[in-house]
Parts: sequence; C-alpha cells; structure tokens
Amino acid sequence: MSYAGLIDVTGRVNDFLNAGSVLSWDARTMMPKAGAETRSKQLATLAVAARNLLCSDETKRALDGAEISDKPADSAEARIVAQVREAINYHERIPTELLRRKTELGSAAHEVWAEAREKADFSIFADALTTMVDINREMAQAIGFDDHPYDALMYRFEPGTTKAGLDRLFARLRDGMLPLVRAIAGAEKPRSDFLFREYPVQAQMEFALKMAKRIGYDTDRGRLDTTVHPFEVSFTRNDVRITTRVNRSYMPMSLFGALHEAGHAMYEQGVDPAYTRTPLATDLISLYAVGGVSFGAHESQSRLWENHVGRSRAFWANHMGDIRAAYPGSLDDVTEEEFYRAVNRSEPSFIRVEADELTYDFHIMLRCELEAALIDGSLAVADLPDAWNAGMKSYLGVDVPDDAQGVLQDVHWSSGQIGTFCNYTIGNIMAAQLFETATDENSGIQAALDGADYTPLRAWLTDKVCRHGRRFSRDELLEKATGRTLDPDPYIAHLTRKYSDLYALA
Amino acid sequence: MSYAGLIDVTGRVNDFLNAGSVLSWDARTMMPKAGAETRSKQLATLAVAARNLLCSDETKRALDGAEISDKPADSAEARIVAQVREAINYHERIPTELLRRKTELGSAAHEVWAEAREKADFSIFADALTTMVDINREMAQAIGFDDHPYDALMYRFEPGTTKAGLDRLFARLRDGMLPLVRAIAGAEKPRSDFLFREYPVQAQMEFALKMAKRIGYDTDRGRLDTTVHPFEVSFTRNDVRITTRVNRSYMPMSLFGALHEAGHAMYEQGVDPAYTRTPLATDLISLYAVGGVSFGAHESQSRLWENHVGRSRAFWANHMGDIRAAYPGSLDDVTEEEFYRAVNRSEPSFIRVEADELTYDFHIMLRCELEAALIDGSLAVADLPDAWNAGMKSYLGVDVPDDAQGVLQDVHWSSGQIGTFCNYTIGNIMAAQLFETATDENSGIQAALDGADYTPLRAWLTDKVCRHGRRFSRDELLEKATGRTLDPDPYIAHLTRKYSDLYALA
Repeated sequence: MSYAGLIDVTGRVNDFLNAGSVLSWDARTMMPKAGAETRSKQLATLAVAARNLLCSDETKRALDGAEISDKPADSAEARIVAQVREAINYHERIPTELLRRKTELGSAAHEVWAEAREKADFSIFADALTTMVDINREMAQAIGFDDHPYDALMYRFEPGTTKAGLDRLFARLRDGMLPLVRAIAGAEKPRSDFLFREYPVQAQMEFALKMAKRIGYDTDRGRLDTTVHPFEVSFTRNDVRITTRVNRSYMPMSLFGALHEAGHAMYEQGVDPAYTRTPLATDLISLYAVGGVSFGAHESQSRLWENHVGRSRAFWANHMGDIRAAYPGSLDDVTEEEFYRAVNRSEPSFIRVEADELTYDFHIMLRCELEAALIDGSLAVADLPDAWNAGMKSYLGVDVPDDAQGVLQDVHWSSGQIGTFCNYTIGNIMAAQLFETATDENSGIQAALDGADYTPLRAWLTDKVCRHGRRFSRDELLEKATGRTLDPDPYIAHLTRKYSDLYALA
Repeated sequence: MSYAGLIDVTGRVNDFLNAGSVLSWDARTMMPKAGAETRSKQLATLAVAARNLLCSDETKRALDGAEISDKPADSAEARIVAQVREAINYHERIPTELLRRKTELGSAAHEVWAEAREKADFSIFADALTTMVDINREMAQAIGFDDHPYDALMYRFEPGTTKAGLDRLFARLRDGMLPLVRAIAGAEKPRSDFLFREYPVQAQMEFALKMAKRIGYDTDRGRLDTTVHPFEVSFTRNDVRITTRVNRSYMPMSLFGALHEAGHAMYEQGVDPAYTRTPLATDLISLYAVGGVSFGAHESQSRLWENHVGRSRAFWANHMGDIRAAYPGSLDDVTEEEFYRAVNRSEPSFIRVEADELTYDFHIMLRCELEAALIDGSLAVADLPDAWNAGMKSYLGVDVPDDAQGVLQDVHWSSGQIGTFCNYTIGNIMAAQLFETATDENSGIQAALDGADYTPLRAWLTDKVCRHGRRFSRDELLEKATGRTLDPDPYIAHLTRKYSDLYALA
C-alpha cells in the first residue's frame, strides 16, 4: 500500500459523506415528509460507514505505507497524512456506545424541543436538555482538553478555540461594540417601510439568483432552491448548491440569504480541483465533506459577501437600478441612500436569526457563555431560562417575552450540538480582517467594488483562502493572508465606522 | 446473533442501495452537469459498499445465527434467509476483477456509443461492444447456467427466464400478433392531428400529475418531476418518485409517461410496510432497493395502468372533460371516440420507445434474439447491423434508414446491460393476465372502472401483487392471483379484441 492507497480509501470516506450531504439536501428541499423516517436511517448508515472506514485497518495500513518522507511538512501530502492520523485518534477516543446514545437522544429530543417551543414552556425540554448536557460532558472527557471541557466540544467545529480565548475576544467586542449599541438605541431610525411591501415570490427568487451570480456564484456548478432555513451544501467543488427563503412581505430576506449562501458556496467552488475527494476537501473531524477549513472560516466568506459587499453603500449605488427593475414600480419612491440605510437598520431584538450586523454577536456571546457554564457545571439546566433572560437584558436591554422567543429559539441544542455557536462571531471577525487586508493592500479591489466589478475581490479570496481547502489551519491561512492570527480590531473598526456614519454618531 | 441481526445488517445494505437511488434520481433531475464525474464515483462507492456488506462475515454470521426453524417455508422469515443465502452465493460467483472491468468499460463505452449514434456509424461502437459481449459471456460462465449462457444474464433481471422459454413465448406472440400488424398496415389510420397541437408545458405537467393521482398515485409519498427519459424510483415505500417528459407539440407523451410511471410507483407504495428495509423490499441480486419481485413484474404494473386503464375507451369516456378543461379550446373539435382512437393508433416504426402497444413487442423480440445470438457466439458483432435491419424488415416490414435509428438506438448495451429487454414483454403479458383475472372474477372492478373509480382495481392489485414485495417469486404470485404461471393468451386476446375493434378488422 502506498500514498495512493491512502488517497483511495479517504476518497471513499469522502464519497460516503458526500452521499450523506446529497440525502440531506434532498430531505430539506425535495423529499415528501413521509420519507423522513427511513431517510434518517439511511443517513445514519452512511455516517457510520464513513467513520468506520476512516478508522478501519485498511486506512491504518494505508497510513503506515504512505511514503511521504521526501515531502515538506506543509505539503498537501504531509498534511493529509497528519490529518488522517489526527482524525482517527479523535474518533477512536469517543466510545461508540456514547455516540449511539447521543444520536438516539438527538432524534428524540428534537420532538420534545419542538413541543416545548410551541408551548413556550422550557420545563418540557428541561429533562432532555439535562441528559444532552450530560452526554456532552462525557464527550468532552472522552475527547480530552487542557483547561475547560468546552474546548473539547468546540474542537469539532473550530479547532484551536478555547473558552479562555473566547472570553478575551468577547471582552474586546463588548468594549468596542456596546457603546455603539447603546448610542443607536436612542437614535432616530431610518425609514424601512418599503422593505415590507408585497414582492412576488418568483421575482424575488429571480433577483436573488441574479445577484448571487453577479458576485460570482457559478450556477454551472450549483443551483438555488427555496427552503424554510437557507443553507449551502457541496457535493465536491463541481456541485455546490444554495437555498434561500422568501417572505412575500419582507423582501431583503431572500436577497441577503442568497448572497450569504453564495459566499459559502464560492468557498467550496474555489477549492483547488486537485483536492477533490481528498482529506483536504473533507472535514474528517466533524465528518462533513467540506473544503472549508473551519466552520468559522466558512462563515467568514458568507458574511464578507453578505455584509461587506452586499450591505455596502457602493453596492446599492451600483445595483439600485437592478432592484428597481426586478420589482417594477415598487421602489420608485426610494433613493439609493434610503435603501442602503434600510438594509443596515440596527435594533436590539430577541431572535438571533433576525438580528442585524451590529447586535448579532451579542446573541452569540450569550449562547457561548451559557453553554460553557452548562458544560462545566456552574449553571444548572433549571436555571438556564433566567440566565438567558438576564443576559439578553444586560447585553441588548431587551425583556424576553417568553421561552419560545428566548432560550428555546434555536434548534442546535435539540440535536445535541453544543460548541458550534462561536463560529458565527469568529466568521464575522475573520471577514472584516480579510476584507480590510484585501482592500488595503490592493487599492484596485476597492475601486473595482466601487465599479460593481467583483472579480478582483473573488480572485483575492480564492487565492488567499478558498483554493487551499483544508491544507492550512484557519490561523495559518489568516497569517499568510493578513500577517496575523484572528484579530477583532478590523471588525470593531468596521462596525464603528459604518454605524457612526449611518446614525450620525459623534 | 439472531434473526434480528440479519434484519439489521440487511437493513444497512438497503440503506446503501437507497442512498444510491437518491443520488441517481438527483443526477437525473436536479444535478448540474459538472457534478457528474464525482457523482459516478460516489455511486460506485455505495454499490461496492452494499455488495461487500451483503457478502461480509457479519452477514454470514447473522445468517448462521438466524433461528427460523419454527417458521413455514413460505414465511417472510424463511424467504429472507433463503434470499440472502442465494444472493451471497450469486455475488461470490462473480470475480470482483470481472465486475471492475465491466464497470470501467461501461463508463468508457457509453461515450463511444454516444459518438457512434451521433454519427450513425456502428463501426465506431463495434470494438467496445465486442469487449462488452465478451465480458458478459465471462459473466454468464461465472454465474452458471443449465442450457444457454443468456439464461445466466437474464437471471439478474427476471429470475427463472430461459432462452428456450422465451423462444416459445415469442413464437406464440408472433402467431397471435403478426396477423394483426399486417392487417393494420393496410387499414385506414384514425385522425391524430390534434395530438400534435401546441400544449403548454405547465398545463401538461399539471394534467399529468392530476391523472396520476386520479388513478391512485399517492403524492404525499412521492413527487413528479420532468426528465428527458421518464422513470420511477423509490427510496422505501414512503418516498416513491416519478418523472415524465414533456413535448410541447406531442401531448400524449407527458400523460402516458406519468400514468406508466405511476403504475410502477403504486407497486412500491403498496409494499407491506413491515417489509421496509428488509430483503423483501431489496433486490439483492440486481442490487436495487426495490420491492417489486422482478423487472417484468414491475413492468406489468406500469403497462396495466398505462394501457389497460389509460388507453381504454372507458377512461376517455370518463376523462375527456378533464383533458378539455386542462387545455381550454384545444380539443373542442375532438370526440371521446376520436381521442381514444388517436392514442391507440398503431403503425410499425423504427424506434422502440415510440412504438405503440401492438408493435412494441416485436422490438423486444428482435433485441432478445440478437442478444442471445451474440452471447452464444452464433452472431458476430460485425454482423449485428445487418441482422438488426433484416429483423426489423421481417417483423415490422420497415426499412431502417441508418444505424442511429436502428441498432444504435438503445442505451442499454453501452453500459453493459445484456439480458434485460425481455422484462418489457413479460410485463405486457403479465399485465393482461392480471387485468383479465381482476375484471373476470370480480365484475365489480370493471364496473368501477367504467365509472372512473380506480380504487377497487388498485386494491385488488395491492392485495394480489404489490403488498407481497419480494416474498413470492413472480410465478408464485401469478399462480396465486390467476391460477397459472405466465400465460400469453390473455395478452393476445386483449390485443386481438382491441385492435380488431379499432380497425374494424374481420
């Protein structure tokens, strides 16, 4: 068995995971509801097959036989060997019995959570969540950690992230952003009435697709569909699909959903073709067939295109004509500046997925802090709703009306996912850091954006981020691209500049 | 390990095969072209995983441990054990090296065939077909047979079918049907001009879906999409999808395509829910996750609903109003009787997939005879086009204009499929046999059909055929349902009755 043997067997791991992704996409876009029960069994079989093939004697023999001593330590070959070894080690630490309990509870807990949310009654979900927290604590012990058990859980989604590091990051964000949130709370809001007019579904989908293509999403290697929750999923770089959601009487949802998911999609479409089906396009830790190096890195691309491009003044200076043409007669009384201000309106709210660019991270901070406290035992599940409501009041000054609009709003905990929320804020930070460098070091990129030419920015991102797939770690990528690891300053500077201008703050 | 262990492991085989079916459906309906290359690798990995799990030590241990001595020989349990043993034995007879060569050639030969067909030049395809025939001869030797190597190949699709049996069947069909074909060739044709008017795509799809539901296709457990070639595929009985094709200026295509595929779909939707994910809903020989007992039995259901119901006089007596309403103004000058006659127009032609009910089987006979002769060596590949053209002249009296409209028209040989064509004619025969019994023994069924009530017929078919899945063989099913094994007389009687009336023959 040679290095080629390793590529062969990991290629089949990738096939199982990609097959699972196709089945998931289908379940969310096309499948009749009745298909759900056996579909979940099919998905489980594929996930187990991928995990077992990864940890099989065949893979271990291939690893032992992979002759790569002549390759530099950061070569694709050396990184592949290291990542496969690391992934086997990771998965073998988790007892299959524990994994089985987690999977089974995940299915059962989802229904309990749905009922609790419908009745806005946390007590219905409390027992299931308690068990889920216990299982995640067991997982953390099995995986192992240096300082805090939460670190072990975040490793799956954002390797290298620690509770201590997150605390420092969040403190800097709070210092930089809370004054803005407070100032805006008292400021006059821009008009946004025109966003809530009636916009035909078909026209919204057509415009969303048009703009996704306009910024560089390649529909020869993808497609756009409608779902309740927008998402992106790839089945190798040559088939990367996105969805968006459409609200007839709130038009920005479909557009910014599509721009966001197109950002994710361009990451996958930009991965080096040579990495197709290899571990450099397969997350062997989380067992998703993705080329993005971490969930946070992925979010950096979606947020960069959605916010730094799609919600910029230049974008609407260039595309106000396009959107007026898409909805004839509906936006004749709206100036470019009014439109730009409306899609950047900021207001503290209860619901994370509806939060604006400035308040969004406070929703994340709260979740991360509560998750860490649940996992280290300093917060009991029974005390979670009060802690949630207090946190919302403290960060955003809002009074949560009930559990459904509070602690029960997110689906994540119902399926046992703990440790994934940090990705969103890391993505926001990374997006600003990359965008600042891209537009700093090469003034041609900003000038191109001003002229509605998105190619230079996409080329820069492809070169610095996308094409490398999972070859370098997130921080290695950032250092190569921006000269330093994750740094919240560009993000704070961006928000300060943007919102001071929007709300005419001092 | 107990019987439950066998159900567990074969459930996972079913999961792999169903996952493959989802990937195939997606590839034909939704996938961007660029996704094809890696998709074929994903499909190959799933197929190999299913085959290897079926033949694994785990399955063999489960078989050895399955205690079913207290169950009767035709119980579901006993049949499952027998079928798993038989399937392992079948697959282990085929060397993996031979299977690999067949798969690889299948991919390569398809492109060669496509080029040959485009250029209407058989010589381009001759070498690839020669290799494919040789590989299939090797397959036949590996699988084993009593009389003729073609029997071994047909076993995969229609177990129990032999060359000798087919020859007898075909002789009876020719005796019964050729006089009708000859007589009609000289008869006056009914008008059919109105079928070729312009019918909007959307309206065609809506009407096709409406009528598929009308005869009993359950869209809560399925969906209809558009493809170049119509097909049905199931991912367990709770998710059974169909497609049809739409030609703006030839309206019957979309409707009868949908009725045909709905017939297939109702077979799968009618399988006993208790058989879900078991070998009684998994073809472990051909490695498709289907509940139908053979490809021919499946075709019996599609042809029954398409032809015996959809192309009946009663159907158009009942639904002429519906189709007029679907295409306002387009069919006002057409009577029910004219419509019925138009959709039953018979005329010898070159192309199998466009052939009418009466001439279709001659296309099949020719293919089966040529395939058998290629496999036993009595026909050389180089002589195939001449043999094809002579056969078409002899059976249908037509002169084949070129290879593209002759020997190169079907995709089957390009992918190495030899031995599957007989299913179509077996399906036709079985459809007539079942329909005759259903309407004979229970006059309520014909009366219901006359009143546009399709429920009694569907209930009868579900009870006699569909619900049993793969528990009984095709001939066991036929004997239980009709008192005898496959019998062409009802089919010949049906065609004689129908076409004598349509063309006012003696």
